[in-house]
Amino acid sequence: MTVTIIGLGLIGGSLALSLRQHGLAQHLIGVESSAAHARRALELGLVDEIEPDLAAAVRRADLVVVAVPVDAMVAVLPPVLDLIGPRQVVIDVGSTKQALLAAVAGHSRRGRFVAVHPMAGTEHSGPEAAVSGLFEGKTVVLCDAEHSDADAVLTVERLFQALPMRLLYLNGADHDVHTAYVSHISHITSFALALTVLEKEKEEQRIFDLASGGFESTVRLAKSAPATWVPIFRQNRLNVLDVLDEHLHQLQHLRELLASEDYDGLAEQIRQANHIRKILP
Amino acid sequence: MTVTIIGLGLIGGSLALSLRQHGLAQHLIGVESSAAHARRALELGLVDEIEPDLAAAVRRADLVVVAVPVDAMVAVLPPVLDLIGPRQVVIDVGSTKQALLAAVAGHSRRGRFVAVHPMAGTEHSGPEAAVSGLFEGKTVVLCDAEHSDADAVLTVERLFQALPMRLLYLNGADHDVHTAYVSHISHITSFALALTVLEKEKEEQRIFDLASGGFESTVRLAKSAPATWVPIFRQNRLNVLDVLDEHLHQLQHLRELLASEDYDGLAEQIRQANHIRKILP
Repeated sequence: MTVTIIGLGLIGGSLALSLRQHGLAQHLIGVESSAAHARRALELGLVDEIEPDLAAAVRRADLVVVAVPVDAMVAVLPPVLDLIGPRQVVIDVGSTKQALLAAVAGHSRRGRFVAVHPMAGTEHSGPEAAVSGLFEGKTVVLCDAEHSDADAVLTVERLFQALPMRLLYLNGADHDVHTAYVSHISHITSFALALTVLEKEKEEQRIFDLASGGFESTVRLAKSAPATWVPIFRQNRLNVLDVLDEHLHQLQHLRELLASEDYDGLAEQIRQANHIRKILP
Repeated sequence: MTVTIIGLGLIGGSLALSLRQHGLAQHLIGVESSAAHARRALELGLVDEIEPDLAAAVRRADLVVVAVPVDAMVAVLPPVLDLIGPRQVVIDVGSTKQALLAAVAGHSRRGRFVAVHPMAGTEHSGPEAAVSGLFEGKTVVLCDAEHSDADAVLTVERLFQALPMRLLYLNGADHDVHTAYVSHISHITSFALALTVLEKEKEEQRIFDLASGGFESTVRLAKSAPATWVPIFRQNRLNVLDVLDEHLHQLQHLRELLASEDYDGLAEQIRQANHIRKILP
C-alpha cells in the first residue's frame, strides 16, 4: 500500500524504515515542514518522495501516519481527517491521547482514525534519528479503538503485529495516566539530574572523565528535545504533576533517612525499589 | 604475577576476568566470606583457588585487591596491610575514599597501598555478575597517589593501562565530591523513581507492558543491592545530601514551571539540560 507520513522525525522516520523493511509499504510519501529535514529524509531513503501539498499527499495514501509533536498533532489531525475518504485509514503516533481524542470527537470521519502509541523511542530527534528495528518486540497501545471503524482497527493491528509489536488496548484517559508513570516522569527526572550535575559540577571535563555507565543511563533522556517534550508535559500536565509529587515525596523520604542516619530504613527502601527487578528482569 | 582478590562480587570478579584475559595474572587466589559465592566463583573460573585463610592468601600474592563493600573495606584493609611485605602491593576498588584513606593514614605499610576506583559497574552483584570487558575504555581514579610508594603506583598504573583504562588522579576529598555528582546521585534518583512507579502503578503487568527503553534506562540502577549502596551513601553522606538537595531544588523548579504553565520557562530548562549532550555525546 501507499503510506503518507506527516513528520519525518525519530518516530515517523523509524516507522517508514520498518514499513519498508517488512514489505508493508510499497510507496512512501513524506510531508515535512522543515525543508532541511525533508531533504535529509530523501537522502536517507526514509521516503520515496516529498509531497509539499498536504491534500495531495493525503489523497494518494491508503494509510496516513501523523508523526508530528503532540501540540501540532491536535492542529493537524482534524484537517487531515477532513480530506480522508471512506476507505483510507489515519493513525497518530503521539505520546498523549486525551487532548487529541477530544479534538476529533464527533468528526464525521472519526471512524477512519485509530489512535496509536508505539512505546519506543530514543533521546534523539529529526530524520537522522530514524533507526530500523526501533519498534521490534515493543508494545503498541491502541486507544479508544471502539470509536474507530472495525476495518480500520484491523488494518492497524495487522500492520503493527507484522513489525512485530505486542498490541495493548487502553482508553485515552488510562493511557495518559500510565504513560505519565512509565515514560513522562523518567524524562522529568533525567532533565533534573542533568541540570543538577551541570549546576554542581562546573568542571565539564570531570563529568566526561568520571561518568560511568550508570550515570549515562540515568541522564540519557536529558538529551531529548524541548519541542517534543514540552507539548507532552503540557497535554498530560495533571498526571505528570501527580506522579512528580509522588517522586518528590519518595526522594524527600530517602533524604530524611540519610540525613537522620537511619541506614536500616534506607536499606529497606532500597529493597522495596529492588522489586522493579521482578517486573523488568 | 599472583593476585589475591578479597571479595568475588561484580567488581572483584570482573577484575579477575580482565587480569586473566590480558595475561596480567598468572595465578588468581580468591578470598570470599560467602561459601556459596566462593563455590560459584570457582565454577565460573573467576579464580584458580579459594583460600579460606586470609593471611595465607595475602602472603602468597604479589598484588592484593580488596573488593568488598565499602563498610567492610574500612575493617578489612588495615589488617591486610598489617600482613603486607615491603614488595607487595594492595589496592581497593571502592566507590568512596575519604573514610578508607583515614582508616589507613599513618599505617606503617601505607606506602604499599594504592587507592583505586575503576569507574565501571552494573546494577547486578555477586560472582554471577562478573563480566569480562567491564573496565575497557573506562576511567580509573587513583586517589592520594603521593601517599603511596612510587613503585606501587607504577605497578597499578601499568596494570590498569593494560586493560586498557584511562588514569585520573584526584585527592580523596575531591573524589568523593565528584562521585556524588556523577554516580551516587544517579542511584538515589533511580531508587526513588522505582519506588514512585511501584507506589503509583499498582498493576505490575501495566509497567511491564508499557515500559519503554527510556523508563528501563532511568530505573535500571534501582536494581542495585542495598548491601553495596547503603555503605556508600553512609560514607559519602554529606556530599550525597548536598547533591540531593540541589536535585530536589531542580525538580521543584520544573514542577513549579509546569504547575504555573510557564512552558517557555520549561523549554528553557530543557535546553539547559540538553547541554549534557556536549559533555556526553
